[in-house]
Amino acid sequence: MNIREEARKMKLVAPVLAASSNETRNAALRAIADALKANKEKIFAANAEDCRAAGENGIAPAVMKRLAFNEAKLTDVCKGIDQLISLPDPIGKSLLKRELDAGLVLERVSVPIGVIGVIFEARPDALVQISTLCLKSGNCAILKGGKETAGTNRVLFSIIHDAAVSAGLPSECLLQAELHNEIDELLQCEKDVDLLIPRGSNQFVQYIMNNTKIPVMGHADGICHIYVDRDVDMDMAINIIIDAKTQYTAACNAVETILINREIAPVFLPLLARSLKAAGVKLRGTQEAEDLIARSSDAAAQIDAVDIMDDDDFRTEYLDMIISLKVVADVEEAIDHINRYGSHHTDSILTRDDAAAARFMQMVDSAGVYRNCSTRFADGFRYGFGAEVGISTSKLHARGPVGLEGLVTYKYLITGSGQIVGDYASGRSSFHFKDL
Amino acid sequence: MNIREEARKMKLVAPVLAASSNETRNAALRAIADALKANKEKIFAANAEDCRAAGENGIAPAVMKRLAFNEAKLTDVCKGIDQLISLPDPIGKSLLKRELDAGLVLERVSVPIGVIGVIFEARPDALVQISTLCLKSGNCAILKGGKETAGTNRVLFSIIHDAAVSAGLPSECLLQAELHNEIDELLQCEKDVDLLIPRGSNQFVQYIMNNTKIPVMGHADGICHIYVDRDVDMDMAINIIIDAKTQYTAACNAVETILINREIAPVFLPLLARSLKAAGVKLRGTQEAEDLIARSSDAAAQIDAVDIMDDDDFRTEYLDMIISLKVVADVEEAIDHINRYGSHHTDSILTRDDAAAARFMQMVDSAGVYRNCSTRFADGFRYGFGAEVGISTSKLHARGPVGLEGLVTYKYLITGSGQIVGDYASGRSSFHFKDL
Repeated sequence: MNIREEARKMKLVAPVLAASSNETRNAALRAIADALKANKEKIFAANAEDCRAAGENGIAPAVMKRLAFNEAKLTDVCKGIDQLISLPDPIGKSLLKRELDAGLVLERVSVPIGVIGVIFEARPDALVQISTLCLKSGNCAILKGGKETAGTNRVLFSIIHDAAVSAGLPSECLLQAELHNEIDELLQCEKDVDLLIPRGSNQFVQYIMNNTKIPVMGHADGICHIYVDRDVDMDMAINIIIDAKTQYTAACNAVETILINREIAPVFLPLLARSLKAAGVKLRGTQEAEDLIARSSDAAAQIDAVDIMDDDDFRTEYLDMIISLKVVADVEEAIDHINRYGSHHTDSILTRDDAAAARFMQMVDSAGVYRNCSTRFADGFRYGFGAEVGISTSKLHARGPVGLEGLVTYKYLITGSGQIVGDYASGRSSFHFKDL
Repeated sequence: MNIREEARKMKLVAPVLAASSNETRNAALRAIADALKANKEKIFAANAEDCRAAGENGIAPAVMKRLAFNEAKLTDVCKGIDQLISLPDPIGKSLLKRELDAGLVLERVSVPIGVIGVIFEARPDALVQISTLCLKSGNCAILKGGKETAGTNRVLFSIIHDAAVSAGLPSECLLQAELHNEIDELLQCEKDVDLLIPRGSNQFVQYIMNNTKIPVMGHADGICHIYVDRDVDMDMAINIIIDAKTQYTAACNAVETILINREIAPVFLPLLARSLKAAGVKLRGTQEAEDLIARSSDAAAQIDAVDIMDDDDFRTEYLDMIISLKVVADVEEAIDHINRYGSHHTDSILTRDDAAAARFMQMVDSAGVYRNCSTRFADGFRYGFGAEVGISTSKLHARGPVGLEGLVTYKYLITGSGQIVGDYASGRSSFHFKDL
């Protein structure tokens, strides 16, 4: 398959998909959910084969869980499709309507982005979520999934594609790329692909960002922080930190660094260290953090790190059962540390102090800034978006979890009756700007 | 000056500017307008010197007009500042407020993008517009203007900067780059600069896009089309085409290609050719267009081009008194031509036929799609945005003329009371998603 040629065809078909009605797109989603259920044995069989091969290749158990596509995952993705069907049409919305002058009306309407390339990890349920999000928002999509589930992906894609076409969507609206070298071809399609969404490791996302002229949405790093302020409920703080670190260690919204207010550090830090160690988390930290924990004479709470951290070490995303600890003077130092060493993903302050919380939420320059809850809430489903194609740390276009709204743009329409700019430049005519 | 160090400082100050009140930012704009008026003789003197030097260097008269900063330009920019002051605060707006669960509230609020680099042509009034748009929207800005007005820019920048600081904004909020090699330094600041807005020639914008990892907003090409449909008021059509081509030839929204419906071409094309030639426009076109004009035996309407155009020639942006002519079968062929050879900037259909217009406006994949008016209306002021920092043909973030709204993004805030994700994963708690 020649990805560039296919992308070219897709680009020219994109306006056709964009012009399809919400009814047609919903009918396609309904057909997809029905076809997935009707063909579940075929999907499960392909997935069993993928999982068997992965097992033989020594894939870690934590990763194996992600490869699986079983009855529970099928129920989840079908529930997701039902949610998408129930959501209002994201395209064709009038976002602005303004009479510029008599008989000259400007309108801004939401439209799909066009052609989106999504490169994602070996998670078959992601293929279903991403393709249905794209179709609901009227976008054509080129999908490249992780190779460990290539067999499952192939079966899923063919079911999804055929169901969409049977419901009346153009055949070119979805394309599956299967070979690794097709990724590099895809990166060259800047004339025809409007957006790339890479998901995966930091190095992989960096590679994509550095090797394409296509706009990229997503995030390379998720260096999330929790700042424990002076006036805090310590039990709540420990509960939240354990959740944010251990509930799903490999997620981008898992916490990596805990900043602790100096006033409470002598009491709080040993308590925290003991709880983290009990949960199986290895500790790293500054000299001051190590000293405070050591001084507590609690053998269960010692720092493991031989190397004491310096500031640049705080740029590390562990995605593992390791955490960084640092003592700070106050909320200002916490804000400064986060804006300097963080990745602008999601950061949380734990405090009873409204003024400190307000200051933190105003000044921390991240896609998500929380008070008194876990950083793990950064997720499209948990925000009530139905699903997400990824989380963006970019400040342009969509920021944070990206659902339907992040997959549309707009265009400006003007309906006139012969107006020329010369008349406005000469003063013969003038604008009156009346919002309708 | 070391741009990277300055950008780093600016990045850390950006949240301070973002936290400033609308009153403070408006006071800064008021102080800027007052200071510009109070120092006008100094500005005019610097500008006279720039213009004198440019004249000696043989700058074309059309360009000379852009270099000038005189009483009329001062009045215009001060009027623009008054408009900006009167516009509502674009930041701190609550865009979404949703109770995820009892005591767990998600909010999306608009915030500035952060640090914006703007590289613009030698037009001193642009410096005033861009810096005041950035300040109103709470953004720090690094400004690099065209070298032909370096003296004027230096005086203007110093007045603007001092006035902003005197009103209470941080000194680092605005920075002027003056040396050409500082552009290359700026392109390396992907850690600290959130957005680049380059304005200028196609090659220049392409150079910026190809040599930075910073997101770029703007447009390289403005290949705008007018399609003249079968059922059209021919006088209106000629009036609009002449305006769109000649009212300001060097603008990106000037028309480059006219597509003519085959049914009316034998009558319309010779009329159009005659009017264009009378206005001083040189004609290029396909063999069919040339034949139709030649057959009219109207010597005043002959095509100049020795070379007959083939399809790829239609990718040319003339920015000059030259126009491309092509005969098409119908609105479908016009749409296909525009989506294939255009630059997704601004395209217009001239027709009395509502169905053809609706089809064209739906299917043409451009930032602006018009009916029965000139493409030259693509402009922030004419859309009622007060001013613009540029026009974007990107589909991400802002599209079309970019005013205040295009200079903000958002962040998600969650206020909780100790919630952890583990409780939702285990089913102990569940989301109820209630929009507030």
